[in-house]
Amino acid sequence: MKIFKVPLTPEQIATQLQCKSIIKKDIKLTNVAELNEADKNSVCFFENPKFQEDLKATKAGLIFVPKDFDITLKPDTNLILIDKPYISFMMLVKTWLKLEAPVQKSEIAKTAIISDSAKIGKNVIIGHNCIVHDKTEIGNNTIIESNSVIMKNAKIGSNCHIYPNTTIYEDSILKNNIILHAGCVIGAEGFGYLFYEGIQNKIPQVGNVVIEDDVEIGANSTIDRATIGSTVIGKGTKIDNLVQVGHNCKIGKNSILCAQVGIAGSTEIGDIVYLAGQVGIADHLKIGDGVMVGAQSGVSNSIPEKAKYFGTPAIDAGLKKRILASEKYLPKIVRYYKKMFKEKKEKE
Amino acid sequence: MKIFKVPLTPEQIATQLQCKSIIKKDIKLTNVAELNEADKNSVCFFENPKFQEDLKATKAGLIFVPKDFDITLKPDTNLILIDKPYISFMMLVKTWLKLEAPVQKSEIAKTAIISDSAKIGKNVIIGHNCIVHDKTEIGNNTIIESNSVIMKNAKIGSNCHIYPNTTIYEDSILKNNIILHAGCVIGAEGFGYLFYEGIQNKIPQVGNVVIEDDVEIGANSTIDRATIGSTVIGKGTKIDNLVQVGHNCKIGKNSILCAQVGIAGSTEIGDIVYLAGQVGIADHLKIGDGVMVGAQSGVSNSIPEKAKYFGTPAIDAGLKKRILASEKYLPKIVRYYKKMFKEKKEKE
Amino acid sequence: MKIFKVPLTPEQIATQLQCKSIIKKDIKLTNVAELNEADKNSVCFFENPKFQEDLKATKAGLIFVPKDFDITLKPDTNLILIDKPYISFMMLVKTWLKLEAPVQKSEIAKTAIISDSAKIGKNVIIGHNCIVHDKTEIGNNTIIESNSVIMKNAKIGSNCHIYPNTTIYEDSILKNNIILHAGCVIGAEGFGYLFYEGIQNKIPQVGNVVIEDDVEIGANSTIDRATIGSTVIGKGTKIDNLVQVGHNCKIGKNSILCAQVGIAGSTEIGDIVYLAGQVGIADHLKIGDGVMVGAQSGVSNSIPEKAKYFGTPAIDAGLKKRILASEKYLPKIVRYYKKMFKEKKEKE
Repeated sequence: MKIFKVPLTPEQIATQLQCKSIIKKDIKLTNVAELNEADKNSVCFFENPKFQEDLKATKAGLIFVPKDFDITLKPDTNLILIDKPYISFMMLVKTWLKLEAPVQKSEIAKTAIISDSAKIGKNVIIGHNCIVHDKTEIGNNTIIESNSVIMKNAKIGSNCHIYPNTTIYEDSILKNNIILHAGCVIGAEGFGYLFYEGIQNKIPQVGNVVIEDDVEIGANSTIDRATIGSTVIGKGTKIDNLVQVGHNCKIGKNSILCAQVGIAGSTEIGDIVYLAGQVGIADHLKIGDGVMVGAQSGVSNSIPEKAKYFGTPAIDAGLKKRILASEKYLPKIVRYYKKMFKEKKEKE
Repeated sequence: MKIFKVPLTPEQIATQLQCKSIIKKDIKLTNVAELNEADKNSVCFFENPKFQEDLKATKAGLIFVPKDFDITLKPDTNLILIDKPYISFMMLVKTWLKLEAPVQKSEIAKTAIISDSAKIGKNVIIGHNCIVHDKTEIGNNTIIESNSVIMKNAKIGSNCHIYPNTTIYEDSILKNNIILHAGCVIGAEGFGYLFYEGIQNKIPQVGNVVIEDDVEIGANSTIDRATIGSTVIGKGTKIDNLVQVGHNCKIGKNSILCAQVGIAGSTEIGDIVYLAGQVGIADHLKIGDGVMVGAQSGVSNSIPEKAKYFGTPAIDAGLKKRILASEKYLPKIVRYYKKMFKEKKEKE
Repeated sequence: MKIFKVPLTPEQIATQLQCKSIIKKDIKLTNVAELNEADKNSVCFFENPKFQEDLKATKAGLIFVPKDFDITLKPDTNLILIDKPYISFMMLVKTWLKLEAPVQKSEIAKTAIISDSAKIGKNVIIGHNCIVHDKTEIGNNTIIESNSVIMKNAKIGSNCHIYPNTTIYEDSILKNNIILHAGCVIGAEGFGYLFYEGIQNKIPQVGNVVIEDDVEIGANSTIDRATIGSTVIGKGTKIDNLVQVGHNCKIGKNSILCAQVGIAGSTEIGDIVYLAGQVGIADHLKIGDGVMVGAQSGVSNSIPEKAKYFGTPAIDAGLKKRILASEKYLPKIVRYYKKMFKEKKEKE
């Protein structure tokens, strides 16, 4: 349950959305909640029939429901009847959060250690114990939370939010409106060795990481710097927790990398690509725009645009599903084959 | 080798355990060790015949052995003859550790930054450079180690141990006797976007994380906050390193999540569930009580209670094993099938 | 693009390498870059024909090319003609980096908190807000970057580089020339519980971690301490990001563990073993010297030396590939088998 400082009334919400509504009681709405934890001041949504029991029992003060909702089910409850209850509800939450967002004022913690050669923009917040090294730049309205480390020559744009305990290595470039969750490591050295004379010889990693506008990266994810050149995360791409992006990868725009995805070095991922959880992609491949890869797949070849792939090694998802559906017959077929083969041998 | 400050004698240990023992030499036991690194002051255990050679060579001062152990194998060594040598040995280690545990005294590092509005219990230890934000609560006897960040309105119960470099986001609730290892991130924003107008639109994540009593979470694991409502980790559940738990998941009691497990959003896991290493579970599923899922399995459907599942997609483990055992015949069968099909064609 | 402080000329580089070269223009070379981002002061390499277009368009001031390179393709460009352009280029980068490396001077940040009982070697650098606990040791020339925590009794050798936000638990032993990237957690408690009386009972973890010389460990990786005894990472082994090594594992020398690999407790890995990305290995196994395991494989049995394994469960890679090549016929075979079986039934 999220409690807001600024209360809203059912009328205010209905007016704002300009949609059909049934207002039974004039109350102060002060929180958003799931149906089963709601109180009389809660705003909720109902869309999935699976939650019918929760709907019946809920004490919510206002519920977003589908247009064709049977209003006799909740005769005494304020209702918003709308096309897509979940999305509209979430839009309300966004607007509501903005109502209570304080005006951001610059606030550099006394315990933060900021190099004299760092360029800090307007309205910047830097938390306790942050270390901002030489020749770094931090743009306007950016927030760097406690205990984060910005190494030398790293550049962070405007309106970014860097959560605690994050490390940004030297030379990294983060553009604008970027969110990095706690524990992210941006720009650590790529994993490159040449084996000769009986040992693993380190290949120097002198490139950097470039993160374009509107990217969000989850907690404890790692994006490695390029060997030379740049590892690039494209505009609007969203990366979940514990994801690994190898050196020299180029990720396109508005792609989705779910948790624990790993991408090996120098692979290119297109725009609006969807990689489900725990997908692994080998090095030096090209994944086309609009590709979707099913969870846990291991991609060992390039994938043409808009294809849906699944499995390890990943193949066309339709074919993989047909193979998987056939698999359960395999023990029987083997039994049959063994018997037949024996019979044949005997005949011969 | 773990060296203890308080020495024990073989007699003391035998008396404490009230079991059969053979005491040949009166010595001071000061450490626990593996057989192959032991010295004359070591306590060891022997249970697995695989370590017979180590047993012969060991200099250990006292060895826990099975009841039916052939004592002529170590005629001059002090022995504890007991039902389950490993478990009994480990119980001894637990007791021994308690003997040397100092009485915990409150100790708030001068370099820790603690909000005036934080409520700190009795006997609390807060390490160097910790940041404890506004309206947080920390219960009695809890230890927060160096460089950890507790964001605003987070509540931590009694007898918890938070290791260094951990981040606990706002509104998180940790109950009692909880261990978080270094680098954990609790309560980062869930991974939710709606794709429209050509971009990924962030769904606000205004829920929280609730961790019940007696939970342990491994290093660098991440538990995301709910979209609305709570992500819940049930009492007594143990989570290994680098595990991802998505937004709105509900994990039951006394379950085991091994390293690198990933659970997508809104999935419910029952009590005493065992998820082996690198298992992935899709979103919105229900995994029943007592379920066991084999390593690296990818679960794409709900699983009834007590079932054993394996594979990607995970199916009944027995069936999967039969399929896997049949697979090696597949190339032969295909060859046969191709030949036969050709022959048939020719005949026709 | 990596810009160097000390410029070099084409002649200097050609002389140093003692190889064939074509020097057309005397220029100052100041950076290394990829062909497509190079300027007239860049050194580049060309080896893979895939980058022919980049080669044509590049403005690079000096290019490392193969011995048999058609020099008419870049008639006006300085060229180094050499056996292995990529390796030679990388060797140049290594040498060049050394030219600009400053002489390391001891520098202990005022904000670092160092126990009086810690032994700090010569020429050590300790960054801001590091916590160095009681009875620790840090060898000569070692660098510990900001916000890292070295817990009590941990010992770090000479010439190590510990990046920011790293946690090294008590009793860990790191030898010499070790690199730990940001967010690493070394020596957290192993994951061991015994289920009885309805709950998961923690097995005490009183061992430690030993990391031998020349090991590199990637960002946010976790190496757990042993239950008793030591978890060991052998000399020269390289570990990528987000890797998990369980308690009591023994990893050999010069092995490679790619990103997101997970190794369960007590498993032994030999020398010069290659584990590709996301490989999982079960507990108590023995992986022989020179073994290679393909990406995402799940290893459930020990592997003899020099074998190549693939799949979950991992089997001989050649056999697995034959099975995978056969799989696409499985739906057809099942259809045929079903039909035939029906026919047979009808005949009987």
